[in-house]
Amino acid sequence: DPKKNLRSEPLPENLKNELIHEALKAKEFSYSPYSKFRVGAALLTESGKIFRGCNNENSSYGLAICAERTAFVKALSEGEKQFRAIAITSDLVDDFISPCGACRQFMCEFGNYWVYLVRNDTHEVLCKTVYELIPYCFTPDDLHLKARKA
Amino acid sequence: DPKKNLRSEPLPENLKNELIHEALKAKEFSYSPYSKFRVGAALLTESGKIFRGCNNENSSYGLAICAERTAFVKALSEGEKQFRAIAITSDLVDDFISPCGACRQFMCEFGNYWVYLVRNDTHEVLCKTVYELIPYCFTPDDLHLKARKA
Amino acid sequence: DPKKNLRSEPLPENLKNELIHEALKAKEFSYSPYSKFRVGAALLTESGKIFRGCNNENSSYGLAICAERTAFVKALSEGEKQFRAIAITSDLVDDFISPCGACRQFMCEFGNYWVYLVRNDTHEVLCKTVYELIPYCFTPDDLHLKARKA
Amino acid sequence: DPKKNLRSEPLPENLKNELIHEALKAKEFSYSPYSKFRVGAALLTESGKIFRGCNNENSSYGLAICAERTAFVKALSEGEKQFRAIAITSDLVDDFISPCGACRQFMCEFGNYWVYLVRNDTHEVLCKTVYELIPYCFTPDDLHLKARKA
Ligand SMILES: [Zn+2]
Ligand SMILES: [Zn+2]
Ligand SMILES: [Zn+2]
Ligand SMILES: [Zn+2]
Repeated sequence: DPKKNLRSEPLPENLKNELIHEALKAKEFSYSPYSKFRVGAALLTESGKIFRGCNNENSSYGLAICAERTAFVKALSEGEKQFRAIAITSDLVDDFISPCGACRQFMCEFGNYWVYLVRNDTHEVLCKTVYELIPYCFTPDDLHLKARKA
Repeated sequence: DPKKNLRSEPLPENLKNELIHEALKAKEFSYSPYSKFRVGAALLTESGKIFRGCNNENSSYGLAICAERTAFVKALSEGEKQFRAIAITSDLVDDFISPCGACRQFMCEFGNYWVYLVRNDTHEVLCKTVYELIPYCFTPDDLHLKARKA
Repeated sequence: DPKKNLRSEPLPENLKNELIHEALKAKEFSYSPYSKFRVGAALLTESGKIFRGCNNENSSYGLAICAERTAFVKALSEGEKQFRAIAITSDLVDDFISPCGACRQFMCEFGNYWVYLVRNDTHEVLCKTVYELIPYCFTPDDLHLKARKA
Repeated sequence: DPKKNLRSEPLPENLKNELIHEALKAKEFSYSPYSKFRVGAALLTESGKIFRGCNNENSSYGLAICAERTAFVKALSEGEKQFRAIAITSDLVDDFISPCGACRQFMCEFGNYWVYLVRNDTHEVLCKTVYELIPYCFTPDDLHLKARKA
């Protein structure tokens, strides 16, 4: 169920707009000399703080860390583990930016909350939940299930 | 659309069973001294070959490579880029094993095909498509869209 | 040459101690339910700011992001790209903590600077440079060399 | 000590040349539409088998898996865990190709052996050991040390 365990309703309009604004500003610090594809994210915690992230690439491509995961590790390293929403922006036109699978996996480690996908040309927003983006997700519970067996 | 661009119908029963059998055998070579959570995968190419993969961990946890991605890079490094189905097995009981988000991202790079998720206690099988597992996926096309803009 | 392009001498004693202190505090927020191996890092920028990072794990082990890389993406996402030193701490006794290869790769993307490896029992410190930890490193220049050929 | 625990002397000339030849052929299957930087690797096991790997990229850059790690997971998934040497090739001119830090970390999980770095224009070869490429490496032992404390 994509709405399972959501902590709250989608964000009120003004808070949603603030989060998107933060995600757009986050994009400006993108370190993406290889893809030249800038991404920004803003993560809202249950406690009301917003953490900004941008994508950070490496000459060994596989070491790149996306904007979404950057925002998460910033929050985690400040002791925040409960999240309410994340907004994601890019330079993509004609379509909404969407988190890669690695970021979806990182998101679902911490439960279900709102994800705002922004289209750069029109600033239209697609509102999804984490569980909608990674159905049948592999979570900490799966490792526990396994432990039950042993 | 989760059935978009599928190359074929789900596998016939005997081929499906063979693929699952291969995934179960693949699991035996799992290098998972840290999680002790063994996973096996078997990937069927359009050309009819099957590639086996297991999960391979590292003392620096972030370097782990899952069974599914192992199967993919084996196939890719032999020149195979078109896929028909993948089967995934584990020691998980009470639930179906499910690919992590990183593996879903790796899968969708090469289009849409069938994914068989196996439950270890009952050997029941859940049949999904790649696009069902990673809706609104970020694909090579997104990088092209961006290029169109520049 | 492991001392090539170093921006400065090793840190003065009081600044080194402050950086190590920050790295020890960073460790407290470690999200490491799987390895139970806590790591903390503190990254000093040329501009004089310190960014704290801890390791952040995931039920899909390969998604883990180390303390060092956490500190880096925090700094990068705030516009900092020039670094002077990083200190790394853990719960490891009998030996110095040492960055994994992925983190060394991340470090050398941004040049050469000082790395302080702390031993948890004695608080002894080993002082190295990035280039000492990843000799013959693959850097942005290698991608440029390749371009020169085409 | 960069020569610690090496299983054998560097390869005899004919075997070294064969390994490099395999690494050059491996490169041909490189899936690198984003970097256009092709890499090939050939991994020689203690049992005398050679596994070929190429780099495999993804539209989400951070999902890329290098040639070296591809060769390793191929070998591991066939039950091979003891290695004698790896050769690495690329299209790089003016310099030797060198493994990224993530691959060095993957290598040192399995001990110390020979690494041949090939320069594409002259086919000159630089011969190193794993421990030379990742000094003070973080290995499975470090996790055990930690366990000793608890
Ligand atoms: Zn991502
Ligand atoms: Zn996976
Ligand atoms: Zn690391
Ligand atoms: Zn590599």
